Amino acid sequence: MSENSIAHGSFTIEQIYPAKPQKVFKAYSDPVIKRRWFAEGEGWDIETYDLDFRVGGKESSCFRFQGGDLITFDATYFDIVPDNRIIIAYDMTVAGRRISASLATTEIVPEGSGSKLIFTEQGAYLDGQDQILQREHGTRELLEALAKELAREG
Amino acid sequence: MSENSIAHGSFTIEQIYPAKPQKVFKAYSDPVIKRRWFAEGEGWDIETYDLDFRVGGKESSCFRFQGGDLITFDATYFDIVPDNRIIIAYDMTVAGRRISASLATTEIVPEGSGSKLIFTEQGAYLDGQDQILQREHGTRELLEALAKELAREG
Repeated sequence: MSENSIAHGSFTIEQIYPAKPQKVFKAYSDPVIKRRWFAEGEGWDIETYDLDFRVGGKESSCFRFQGGDLITFDATYFDIVPDNRIIIAYDMTVAGRRISASLATTEIVPEGSGSKLIFTEQGAYLDGQDQILQREHGTRELLEALAKELAREG
Repeated sequence: MSENSIAHGSFTIEQIYPAKPQKVFKAYSDPVIKRRWFAEGEGWDIETYDLDFRVGGKESSCFRFQGGDLITFDATYFDIVPDNRIIIAYDMTVAGRRISASLATTEIVPEGSGSKLIFTEQGAYLDGQDQILQREHGTRELLEALAKELAREG
């Protein structure tokens, strides 16, 4: 894990939600809802959050956790199939240093009366600054926040 | 391989070139040189080629092979370390249908009096329209075209 190293890796998380694919998809496509479960949360200070949900559009967020270093997330939307599929590429920086670049696919399919979400990240984790296990852990937390959002929306 | 399917996969290709990392990197960063080995070639009709080689910049190409369907390549540059590392995310379409979205990392390191290039693609191949073995084959051809370009430049 030296200077200018790349650790490649991937992980997949499947999650069942008691909500139709249309509703899960809306939690990704609506900037107000997406910000609530994806960016906000106790201890997180959001400096900026923008989502332009269309192929070629961007999503960007600048935030800090408990007053720590500035963290940035910048995504480009590569593919959108309504109610079914979202593909982004994104990078993250911490204190001005890029820590990763990733391709992330989200598939949403009907499962009983609800949905199954299949998230797959294929990433390049840079210069020993981030690790795939941390990213997977953070992603699981986000998908749990989405579960709460979907329950809240009733 | 049904409608709206995703096949995830990755491959790595290593190649040795008898040229310094600076020269290999220049073949990626100079739009005139890059176009020559990356886009042009016998049987390929290039309709457009543009490269804005900087972090956040775009590369795009529209082309046909032997008068066939229009193929597009659109990349965003996520990370650049001069003479050492290039990370892009890109997608491709054929006849207006997206066939893939990929993260591609290129590492260039000194090897004896030349360079070792390590190319890794992590991709989502869509709707049964493309396969990772085809992509790996096409990438090997590109890296051979780069070898010829480096020899030509002398």
